[in-house]
Amino acid sequence: MDNLEEKTIHSEEIFSGKVVRLELQEVELPNGKKAKREIIKHPGAVAIIAITDENKIVMVEQYRKALERTIVEIPAGKLEKREDPAECALRELEEETSYVCESLELLTSFYTSPGFADEIIHVYLAKGLSKKENSAALDEDEFVNIEELTLEEAIQYIKDQKIYDAKTIYAVQYLQLQEALAK
Amino acid sequence: MDNLEEKTIHSEEIFSGKVVRLELQEVELPNGKKAKREIIKHPGAVAIIAITDENKIVMVEQYRKALERTIVEIPAGKLEKREDPAECALRELEEETSYVCESLELLTSFYTSPGFADEIIHVYLAKGLSKKENSAALDEDEFVNIEELTLEEAIQYIKDQKIYDAKTIYAVQYLQLQEALAK
Repeated sequence: MDNLEEKTIHSEEIFSGKVVRLELQEVELPNGKKAKREIIKHPGAVAIIAITDENKIVMVEQYRKALERTIVEIPAGKLEKREDPAECALRELEEETSYVCESLELLTSFYTSPGFADEIIHVYLAKGLSKKENSAALDEDEFVNIEELTLEEAIQYIKDQKIYDAKTIYAVQYLQLQEALAK
Repeated sequence: MDNLEEKTIHSEEIFSGKVVRLELQEVELPNGKKAKREIIKHPGAVAIIAITDENKIVMVEQYRKALERTIVEIPAGKLEKREDPAECALRELEEETSYVCESLELLTSFYTSPGFADEIIHVYLAKGLSKKENSAALDEDEFVNIEELTLEEAIQYIKDQKIYDAKTIYAVQYLQLQEALAK
């Protein structure tokens, strides 16, 4: 089929919050029939693979209300309005870990849940880390514990389901691939 | 901080649809203060890295209304109520690609967007593929084109942003890692 597009017939905003907006859309399918689409709009986010001079991966342990549990993730955060993703990455790294970095490289970007959400995450690699005194503070509703893991520890955390989210599993696999390619 | 838990004070269902439910929760933070959490409830999903006997990766091109564009993804789909993830993987593989497989192995599971959603994806590796005649049909609002890519083509698709979602980028990187480790 050449054209898979679904044209919007009608769109209704159900909810507009601090993090997400929910739209209920009626669309015309490629065969002319109609269907409903539930769409979550999200501002987008960044995540940072931050590697210390001791070759450890900087992680944050964080309670995730959606999962009703804590998980261990690479530092990440939502884009502010009109914020440049690279600046957002530097800001989130400092706020969540107190680290600043000498080099920051965009590795990839991906949509997390294209079936129902437009959230995109830009993943950066940060090196040349140093702790900043009096670093920028977390949002007042954010509480995290910092952990610095070797690659082997991070792989074990995946097996133990302490690391359990797409961006962090991507990050660990990225580092495994770099290590395998360097041999 | 030992206990990062956020206790639910109040939860309100804003929307309940075919794919997602939206809850607005008021929580008590670790410091005793209150905050709002916007939570998307999702039934969970499976995705399948399906490798043909010619060592190609089976992909589906699909229009994603949330992104207003088509992207190329590994086959995937939502869990039905009380459906076993492995059975769901076999069902979705057949519906989307007409392939059945001799072996199916769970590789990993991950939450896609832990900041606001409880969607989990179980990723399977399927081998020993054969096309089934009169295979199970797609849902009536699903339209896909099938593509079979070499690993090199898939890597190029990521560069070209034709492949653009977390599970498929994870899948391609998984195959790159297996290839690098086999050398």
